[in-house]
Amino acid sequence: MSERPIRYGMVGGGRDAFIGAVHRMAARLDDAMHLLAGALSSTPEKAKASGEDLGLDPARCYGSWQDMLKAESALPADERIECVVIVTPNHVHHAPAKAALEAGFHVVCDKPLTCTPEDAQDLVDTARATGKVFGVTYNYTGYPMIRHAAHMVRSGAIGSVRKVFVEYLQGWLATPLEESGQKQADWRTDPTRAGAGGAMGDIGSHAENLVSTVTGLKIESFCSDVSTFVPGRSIDDDTSVLLRFAGGARGVLSASQVCVGHRNGLTLRVYGETGAVHWNQERPDQLMVHTLDGPDTVLHRADADLADAATAVTRLPGGHPEAFIEAFANIYRGVAAAIGAGEDDPARFGYPGVADGARGVRFINQVIAAGGDGWTTFEDA
Amino acid sequence: MSERPIRYGMVGGGRDAFIGAVHRMAARLDDAMHLLAGALSSTPEKAKASGEDLGLDPARCYGSWQDMLKAESALPADERIECVVIVTPNHVHHAPAKAALEAGFHVVCDKPLTCTPEDAQDLVDTARATGKVFGVTYNYTGYPMIRHAAHMVRSGAIGSVRKVFVEYLQGWLATPLEESGQKQADWRTDPTRAGAGGAMGDIGSHAENLVSTVTGLKIESFCSDVSTFVPGRSIDDDTSVLLRFAGGARGVLSASQVCVGHRNGLTLRVYGETGAVHWNQERPDQLMVHTLDGPDTVLHRADADLADAATAVTRLPGGHPEAFIEAFANIYRGVAAAIGAGEDDPARFGYPGVADGARGVRFINQVIAAGGDGWTTFEDA
Amino acid sequence: MSERPIRYGMVGGGRDAFIGAVHRMAARLDDAMHLLAGALSSTPEKAKASGEDLGLDPARCYGSWQDMLKAESALPADERIECVVIVTPNHVHHAPAKAALEAGFHVVCDKPLTCTPEDAQDLVDTARATGKVFGVTYNYTGYPMIRHAAHMVRSGAIGSVRKVFVEYLQGWLATPLEESGQKQADWRTDPTRAGAGGAMGDIGSHAENLVSTVTGLKIESFCSDVSTFVPGRSIDDDTSVLLRFAGGARGVLSASQVCVGHRNGLTLRVYGETGAVHWNQERPDQLMVHTLDGPDTVLHRADADLADAATAVTRLPGGHPEAFIEAFANIYRGVAAAIGAGEDDPARFGYPGVADGARGVRFINQVIAAGGDGWTTFEDA
Amino acid sequence: MSERPIRYGMVGGGRDAFIGAVHRMAARLDDAMHLLAGALSSTPEKAKASGEDLGLDPARCYGSWQDMLKAESALPADERIECVVIVTPNHVHHAPAKAALEAGFHVVCDKPLTCTPEDAQDLVDTARATGKVFGVTYNYTGYPMIRHAAHMVRSGAIGSVRKVFVEYLQGWLATPLEESGQKQADWRTDPTRAGAGGAMGDIGSHAENLVSTVTGLKIESFCSDVSTFVPGRSIDDDTSVLLRFAGGARGVLSASQVCVGHRNGLTLRVYGETGAVHWNQERPDQLMVHTLDGPDTVLHRADADLADAATAVTRLPGGHPEAFIEAFANIYRGVAAAIGAGEDDPARFGYPGVADGARGVRFINQVIAAGGDGWTTFEDA
Repeated sequence: MSERPIRYGMVGGGRDAFIGAVHRMAARLDDAMHLLAGALSSTPEKAKASGEDLGLDPARCYGSWQDMLKAESALPADERIECVVIVTPNHVHHAPAKAALEAGFHVVCDKPLTCTPEDAQDLVDTARATGKVFGVTYNYTGYPMIRHAAHMVRSGAIGSVRKVFVEYLQGWLATPLEESGQKQADWRTDPTRAGAGGAMGDIGSHAENLVSTVTGLKIESFCSDVSTFVPGRSIDDDTSVLLRFAGGARGVLSASQVCVGHRNGLTLRVYGETGAVHWNQERPDQLMVHTLDGPDTVLHRADADLADAATAVTRLPGGHPEAFIEAFANIYRGVAAAIGAGEDDPARFGYPGVADGARGVRFINQVIAAGGDGWTTFEDA
Repeated sequence: MSERPIRYGMVGGGRDAFIGAVHRMAARLDDAMHLLAGALSSTPEKAKASGEDLGLDPARCYGSWQDMLKAESALPADERIECVVIVTPNHVHHAPAKAALEAGFHVVCDKPLTCTPEDAQDLVDTARATGKVFGVTYNYTGYPMIRHAAHMVRSGAIGSVRKVFVEYLQGWLATPLEESGQKQADWRTDPTRAGAGGAMGDIGSHAENLVSTVTGLKIESFCSDVSTFVPGRSIDDDTSVLLRFAGGARGVLSASQVCVGHRNGLTLRVYGETGAVHWNQERPDQLMVHTLDGPDTVLHRADADLADAATAVTRLPGGHPEAFIEAFANIYRGVAAAIGAGEDDPARFGYPGVADGARGVRFINQVIAAGGDGWTTFEDA
Repeated sequence: MSERPIRYGMVGGGRDAFIGAVHRMAARLDDAMHLLAGALSSTPEKAKASGEDLGLDPARCYGSWQDMLKAESALPADERIECVVIVTPNHVHHAPAKAALEAGFHVVCDKPLTCTPEDAQDLVDTARATGKVFGVTYNYTGYPMIRHAAHMVRSGAIGSVRKVFVEYLQGWLATPLEESGQKQADWRTDPTRAGAGGAMGDIGSHAENLVSTVTGLKIESFCSDVSTFVPGRSIDDDTSVLLRFAGGARGVLSASQVCVGHRNGLTLRVYGETGAVHWNQERPDQLMVHTLDGPDTVLHRADADLADAATAVTRLPGGHPEAFIEAFANIYRGVAAAIGAGEDDPARFGYPGVADGARGVRFINQVIAAGGDGWTTFEDA
Repeated sequence: MSERPIRYGMVGGGRDAFIGAVHRMAARLDDAMHLLAGALSSTPEKAKASGEDLGLDPARCYGSWQDMLKAESALPADERIECVVIVTPNHVHHAPAKAALEAGFHVVCDKPLTCTPEDAQDLVDTARATGKVFGVTYNYTGYPMIRHAAHMVRSGAIGSVRKVFVEYLQGWLATPLEESGQKQADWRTDPTRAGAGGAMGDIGSHAENLVSTVTGLKIESFCSDVSTFVPGRSIDDDTSVLLRFAGGARGVLSASQVCVGHRNGLTLRVYGETGAVHWNQERPDQLMVHTLDGPDTVLHRADADLADAATAVTRLPGGHPEAFIEAFANIYRGVAAAIGAGEDDPARFGYPGVADGARGVRFINQVIAAGGDGWTTFEDA
């Protein structure tokens, strides 16, 4: 990490927010990016106060993202921020992202990318037109063992893929938590701020992205069952989807926020003709590998002979666990390297790109729209 | 177990068979039933030799089940067998079962009960008409922790059920093993002997039964994806099904025999409004229990305060594991008690009955028939 | 298992006993041995009643083991029992075992073999003099994966052994349960019936035997810490021992019955120059294997390429778990085969012999005698 | 974390070092401390180059720690470093730590504190005399679930402690890796740089500290077995110790670097009269809790109702795993808070102090000196 850190400003992530602090730790862990400015809240006073909490120069604690983009653009090139990190609720992704790109900034945006497929495609087009780097924080793809799994599956180590199970189960919305005013529950269950998908949008999007990242398979059609179990809730809290992929593989994707007892139960299992890999986010340093005849094996992060893509994002020896923040930091490391190189190349630098984000929005919205209609063709871009 | 053992004869289960030996160990473990006769193979010489292996009286080693029923019927009442145990391939279930009932014998039959729903219903009707005990060896319901799970779910300990995941995954048919002449693969992949379902019939039937046993929920409709991955195979080897239950619960059932690395991966997870239970057949003495706010708990067989239905089928102290044969033996224990009492009451004596078997056949056949048609109403009896 | 079953009589194991019933299930599971007689209790009426519970011929339900030996000896050779199974408290092992051998019967005796090393050696000598088969039910050695572990370690698969950890931890005696009159606690905490060792005798003996069975190493010296935590108890309830083996390997053996939360926590880990094996009795179908550079592997019972000694005692396919009773039955299978062959050869037929039992008694008694004295030479026979 | 970051300089930790980078990430994660100066290598050129890698002002990349202390002392108070972090091999701990304290700097020093008990006591005395904050990076005590375990045990939740098992097992020194010139192996197996203890010093020290931290028990006497398995090695690579604590509890401590297959196998189990807690560093977000009669429970970081001391060092919701770097960062967070408050109070601010470090050195050196002598009284300060 001898590259110089990238200067960034953050939109959202002020006091009481959750994910903004994670982004900041992730950006800081490897000294990949330095926070120098912020429009940390849509309430100007709170934005200022939040910036002071973080030790920002008060002059660079802005009352709105519009102010931030304008003022930073006016600073000398070697002082102004280079990248805008967007960690607001979903309905405030598209506008600042588009404006940032057009003002010449690189962008990191949380997932799902936008509320509508049209907005998502607009960001794809704008990013392409401006040539700026655009990262989407599907953070689970930052785990070294996911990168090794992707290497294995894509290089044929388990043969042609036949079946995929991906589950993302949580239990924190098993009760009408949004009625208590809890901030995270409030906006995530409100379609005007979250978009069409509840569980499907918030965590199902990660599940879709993980399958795509690891297998490279294209979804051809799907059949979904979209449910809302908590009375009074106006968005799905439990969705299961049967998947058919180009080439004949089949899959089952489940996303639920009413599965009591699950804290953050994201698991991926991929079965091929000659082998299988299993990964569990709550034990992320391991990858279970099965073959037709051999014993089960358990690979660990930092084992000899892992793929270069896994080794490159490993900081500690085996048995010294790395976890969520480290994986998240790997996304930032990739974005920073891309910005340093001046090239928006997700595959080369190791981060999910705007196209991944747009595909995710299409998938969420089509799954929800189909509801229980039966088999539906997935219309990708 | 101070009741006298029940005398039985076996149809199938000769040399080279697999499940017959398990039935015999299960029947013997608690001295619940004594094997005294057999039509152990459809090849008379092999039937004789197999009987000798088992120490049977040569006079009671019959060349066919028809011979067995006839000859045993002619013996004095206190000598002849009381029960016929049928462990043949699926297409040889209905005929001997029906004949045995009509000849006045009780019946234990392996699952799936028959190849067709019509034959299954015929056995239901015949059993009712004759009043004989009829057990179907859905053996996984014999596990104490499944009995405790059923007690918990049915008594409301996790609240109203919202979501069920049941999986039965194996990998042994990931290659065209049937082409090698391997006996188990041969008939299980042949629709004329196995019935309509491959993976769905052989193991999906257990999955359906386990859900029904633990939750008591009725399937209202389903959407299935039925696949055959191994070239040249004429029966499904991988099937996933979305389920909708009466009352609003949803489920996902997966049965596959091409999931490389799984030996016998049967798991059940039931999520209710206020709690959840998880069970894994490869670690059967445990039940994971989750609640809305409390810590995760792990219940173990023989723990104090388990349901009576679990304690009643526990032989050893905690930490001294019981497993597959013991669970299977619990089914035999239940059947023997029913025979001793002269009453075909599965719920009271603790064994799956002929009605469970018939529902299973209807489910298998409707799932396969629907294929990928989308949502389908389940037509139960 | 085409051999004829061996006829046996049982000493102890009547109503309210625990381990007798396990022995009977183990003997019956494979039809290895048939129970035909018993002196099931030291109270004659209870002995009779217990025999009736088991369906024994009332004429062969004896009021004492002396009566049983005398009466059975008088029966025709093809009717009388061939083997005496002793499942009484430890202080009633030596006398019936010796008398049985001298009366021409084979013997199966529970562990620890006797209360004193002198009595143990006397049984070794008597067995040798009479040529009868003598099995000691160190039942954990019956597990297939222990047999595979022994094959691996003894054939050099992990290189020269350096370190061994063996633990047998239980929690059921964390309170003064014996004061409640609970039968198992009562005699096991009474040195006049249990012998010198409490936790060390009851379960530490299994630990010592498991190390010896798997590694073949000889203990040269040891340093023990012998504790009694529960007030009023007159026997150890927690003992840890440092071990030095011939050839330089070191070990740690721990046996405790006050480790709250452990049901039956028997684990063995053996580390060699180039690999290691780990086994846990509460998950007995698995063996973890480590090598210097490779990934961790998990072997399962019934995997291809296991040692013949493991495969020979496997009944079910992988993933269909076998457990405590099955392992116990493997000891009976071995004893029955030895009796059938008329040869007391533990290594060949697969059962722990009288010499293993005697070494165990010497170890227990020397560990307890040494108490906290520091390093002590182990005086084996 | 609204406190201003503490300015620090690092001794050691240049190119090719391992633990220095971990310290830097840990200090940075929460913005607790800012690296502004360094004497990163004992080779001046390497020290400079290493500083440039990290983006340090070249003027503050010093060729020796002596230069750093001198030059930094001459800077204005609001510019110069406030704290010296020492991450050199053990024999270069005492001199820079003492000099730093005497020059008015706070100190963070890696463990074991020094090579000799005399040097350790000298640092205790010097720290007391100067009043500076002194943290020792026994990093495992930073884990939230260790803090919860300590709360439970010390508040009586498991009753009076009876037995403790602590193990720290690694396999990376199972071969003579030091002969290859591998830097970490080289100095850690050299008593002139590592001190008296090999495995005992490097990792046994963590084990001792963890027991002390969680239980508060004082070691009264011990019996050790100190082994060197790898030929040619001049320091222990495998040590086991029986422990007796004041008040009657007993323990077993094992530290080995030749246990093939263990990456970083640090586990702690504490058994009390009424309960037990188990923790495993390779799954650090969990704490297993046992009670006399209840089911097993699994507590997770961020569960409701954990101790304040655990919650205070939790960054993420449950199921979003935190790991090694986060725990390490908790030590830095505590040290930074103590420096901010100007008070060396390890218990209040949550970091291991110089007295813990000195006790650790006494324990290492006495265990090694005792070798296999038998029971030895532990002479604490």
